[in-house]
Amino acid sequence: MEAKSYPEFSTRYPLLIKTLMDRPVRMYPNEIAVVYRSDAGQYFRFTWAQWHERTCRLAHALKALGVKPGKAGQPGDRIASMALNHHRHLELCYAVPCLGAVKHPINIRLSLDHIVYTITHAKDKIIFFDDSIMPLLERIYDRIKPTVEKFVYMSDKPGLPKTKIAPLYEYEALLKEHPPTFDWPYLDEDTYATLYYTTGTTGLPKGVMFTHRQIYLRTLHALAQGGLAVRPTAEGAPPRLGENAVNLVNTPLYHIHGWGVPFSHVFSATKIVFPGRFTPEAFCELVEKEKVTNAGVVPTMLAMLLEFKDLKKYDMSSLTNIGVGGGSLPLGLKTKAEKMMPGFTATSGYGMTETLAGGVGAFIKKTMLNWPKDKIDELRVKTGLPTGGLEVRVVDEHGKSVPQDNETVGEIVLRGPWIMGEYWQDPERTATTWRDGWFHTGDAAKVDPEGYITIVDRITDVIRSGAEMVPTVLLENLTAAADFVLEATYVGVPDEKWGERPMALVKLIPGTTPKETDVIKFLEAEGVEKGKITKWMLPTFVAFVDEIPKTSVGKFDKVAIRKRLDEFLAKAKQVRNV
Amino acid sequence: MEAKSYPEFSTRYPLLIKTLMDRPVRMYPNEIAVVYRSDAGQYFRFTWAQWHERTCRLAHALKALGVKPGKAGQPGDRIASMALNHHRHLELCYAVPCLGAVKHPINIRLSLDHIVYTITHAKDKIIFFDDSIMPLLERIYDRIKPTVEKFVYMSDKPGLPKTKIAPLYEYEALLKEHPPTFDWPYLDEDTYATLYYTTGTTGLPKGVMFTHRQIYLRTLHALAQGGLAVRPTAEGAPPRLGENAVNLVNTPLYHIHGWGVPFSHVFSATKIVFPGRFTPEAFCELVEKEKVTNAGVVPTMLAMLLEFKDLKKYDMSSLTNIGVGGGSLPLGLKTKAEKMMPGFTATSGYGMTETLAGGVGAFIKKTMLNWPKDKIDELRVKTGLPTGGLEVRVVDEHGKSVPQDNETVGEIVLRGPWIMGEYWQDPERTATTWRDGWFHTGDAAKVDPEGYITIVDRITDVIRSGAEMVPTVLLENLTAAADFVLEATYVGVPDEKWGERPMALVKLIPGTTPKETDVIKFLEAEGVEKGKITKWMLPTFVAFVDEIPKTSVGKFDKVAIRKRLDEFLAKAKQVRNV
Repeated sequence: MEAKSYPEFSTRYPLLIKTLMDRPVRMYPNEIAVVYRSDAGQYFRFTWAQWHERTCRLAHALKALGVKPGKAGQPGDRIASMALNHHRHLELCYAVPCLGAVKHPINIRLSLDHIVYTITHAKDKIIFFDDSIMPLLERIYDRIKPTVEKFVYMSDKPGLPKTKIAPLYEYEALLKEHPPTFDWPYLDEDTYATLYYTTGTTGLPKGVMFTHRQIYLRTLHALAQGGLAVRPTAEGAPPRLGENAVNLVNTPLYHIHGWGVPFSHVFSATKIVFPGRFTPEAFCELVEKEKVTNAGVVPTMLAMLLEFKDLKKYDMSSLTNIGVGGGSLPLGLKTKAEKMMPGFTATSGYGMTETLAGGVGAFIKKTMLNWPKDKIDELRVKTGLPTGGLEVRVVDEHGKSVPQDNETVGEIVLRGPWIMGEYWQDPERTATTWRDGWFHTGDAAKVDPEGYITIVDRITDVIRSGAEMVPTVLLENLTAAADFVLEATYVGVPDEKWGERPMALVKLIPGTTPKETDVIKFLEAEGVEKGKITKWMLPTFVAFVDEIPKTSVGKFDKVAIRKRLDEFLAKAKQVRNV
Repeated sequence: MEAKSYPEFSTRYPLLIKTLMDRPVRMYPNEIAVVYRSDAGQYFRFTWAQWHERTCRLAHALKALGVKPGKAGQPGDRIASMALNHHRHLELCYAVPCLGAVKHPINIRLSLDHIVYTITHAKDKIIFFDDSIMPLLERIYDRIKPTVEKFVYMSDKPGLPKTKIAPLYEYEALLKEHPPTFDWPYLDEDTYATLYYTTGTTGLPKGVMFTHRQIYLRTLHALAQGGLAVRPTAEGAPPRLGENAVNLVNTPLYHIHGWGVPFSHVFSATKIVFPGRFTPEAFCELVEKEKVTNAGVVPTMLAMLLEFKDLKKYDMSSLTNIGVGGGSLPLGLKTKAEKMMPGFTATSGYGMTETLAGGVGAFIKKTMLNWPKDKIDELRVKTGLPTGGLEVRVVDEHGKSVPQDNETVGEIVLRGPWIMGEYWQDPERTATTWRDGWFHTGDAAKVDPEGYITIVDRITDVIRSGAEMVPTVLLENLTAAADFVLEATYVGVPDEKWGERPMALVKLIPGTTPKETDVIKFLEAEGVEKGKITKWMLPTFVAFVDEIPKTSVGKFDKVAIRKRLDEFLAKAKQVRNV
């Protein structure tokens, strides 16, 4: 007998996305895996075996279309999707990377210029697109034609439309041409699997590639963390979740890996429910019909649900948890939601394109099981605690951890198995975020004595006064509470002694006639005296303005404000000497 | 700015045991981590911060003692322990590998010759030993002296004893000499961390080394699997476990990584309770006092508990699960235990030295939540389902999967991230188990239609009749149920037509006078007609014997029986023609 060992199947067994598929298909071949409700209200249901068969057929089709795999350090062909959430999109999430190619889910909310830029920069070879996206694609077709070789049309209705887009293939027809089993290769675990682009609020979008190993490890860590999390008595005792959870996935799969859902929820064999475009009706109908237990939303969706007049008509009792990401979760919104949908809990979390999916979540410690509900609620709206296995710190400018006083502001830095390695083909911008062995998120945050992180600002918007950072979001919320203020924002004004000092831009409620010093009086009474802010944070300047510049998505446009700083400063009154 | 990325902190972030320590120390510095009840009834308690400080002091001490780290493919110094379960042992589980050295927990139940062999084969540089182990160590001292450079004495009482063992250091004194913080290095994840030896029931013990990566990945997979597992309605609705579990660890840490406890239970920040030597009194006292929720035992321990006359005096209500390994869990024992300790469930599992810890467990599928209790119980005593991420198959001699008919017997083969790579410095014996890309366990099993595996025998003890394997354990249990049979075993007899045919060796109950054909009559009535066995499994020969050869641990000694086959065959009657 020839003596031989197999490190590739033991010590170096590769961590691959294909393994995530194996568990549900083996354990639950005949259970429903994916439910898709189209915008037209049509339902599609697939068992794990059926979904896997379709994924195998797709893999054959991709090979027939000429898709070439890559290897460690050298990406395979980039295969893009322009699609909403549905079973076909989930099939692409597996067939493309498990072949060794790179899946690039295009963010269809980007500007057309940025969409063209990402397609060109990624060198996408094939684009899979939804029928509803076709008008958008036709508008940019001439600009991407030199890059993209082939297009695949995905629709619930058979047949191909009349279009200039060519060569054009039909998704469902391709599947029918190929067999339902596929011998998934054992790739190198460092093979690239996905390519995502940042939204590019400042400058062009940046490309981020993730490997099989990274996606696999993030999935395992998230599931281990989820299994350990405790539920406080104050939140009631829901049925134990696990494999028998049902997840409604509103987060677009083209956004931060759909918060990791395509991978964690497949491995966990939970039923995945895709609602097409988010509407309160579809959300409530799906919760009732599919007995949804968990859902992920952005704060706006939660607010829309609460305003939905027919909410009470639906049985929402199966819903035990809503995870809120993509923006901070206001305590008032959480409280109101939990009152209207009894038995469920809204929880905050945090992630960005560069962190693959979430890495911080507002879960509760076992020492807090008997805390009163109001104290628990305060924690649930914080950004949260790091997932085990990820190193997360909040540091000052010298890389030193800030004290856990829930006040001192620093920047969130992190590192770990699923943090992006580099911006693709962009060493310069990589070097601005990866410094001294830590990935710098650009998010400013404070840490409480229990270790819970709260994001207070983008670090570029923080005002630096002396050695301290002024948390502008906190000041903005506080100032907006004054009964003469419609809205308010803060920027830094250069100062010889302090580096920067805060200036408030305030838009008044029509008909009110306060003086600039009234802003200070209000902040002293409601902020300083109640311990919410300290005296040095008070603005040196206050400017009453007709309009505060905003971005296209309605956020205060700090870049535009800083460009017009002299103009605003000329209008401002100096209200304090420091 | 110099453009630089940090793969070592992102795409290639090493999977290291030190990371497992980080989570509890960060989240729960002041919560109790480890409770140790000595055999003298003395209690020791340490918080996570205290335990970590002691581990840091130990790391400094190890460096001071000259311990040298290894690197990928080249093990560091081997540091052995001869110890029962206690906080010091758990400190060694981290300090040694996190320095880059290899921890070798010596199985103190081996024969003296085999203990000497493993120490010599491992080239142990230092041995850490319990005071209670000293007499054993003194007996082998002269034989291991040429290998072992230093000894460390671990005791609850201060001071060093009079002994010839030298040079001898005192564990607690060493800790006092060193500082309570340590800068744990970022090792290569392929650095060897542990060395275990098989019990060597046939031939010399075999050494198995595991890397940091393997231990880390087994921990993550076990926790992910644990978090997903559902609890059937029939078993009641216990409090959701997770971080707030309390684990009583009876499995020796020198045995199959203590079933993974030192790693999974540290990362999960659950309270770990070490009972010293197992006694029913200590077990019950600890369950009541520490509110133990989970415990791991071997079947014998469970049987001892049920025979313990004072059981009813203790409050055992916190106990929700007992995991049973190291032997199959008889259904009768499970039922009896659950009747005597209401609210808890006994579950079967499977692992061996070569699989690092468990890899198969009798967890329940979500589709079985409403199954009746008797059907659930039947599953709970099966060996179980594979842990997600591990490839497990039951195959025939040609490597083909056996049908899932709960009858056809094959060999369990597996591969995955935490299966041993090779026997250390033993390519020949490696080649007998690693064949065609699969690790061959030597365990014979069948698979039911739901995929649950049941071990029926060691593959070497299986009788091969035609293309089929005769499950001897099943036949033995069935035969032993006859009212004239004290005990029975089966071996194969060479047969020209079938290859082998079964012979039963039966020891009769004194005073009974059955004929050999009565065994067949009984097996036909109770086995064949009731569908438990098929006709071709019936023995061709039956021999009534005065004594059945047994091993030192009381198992039927098939090797000895096969050596004396002619002698037994001469005594046997041929009872069937096939």
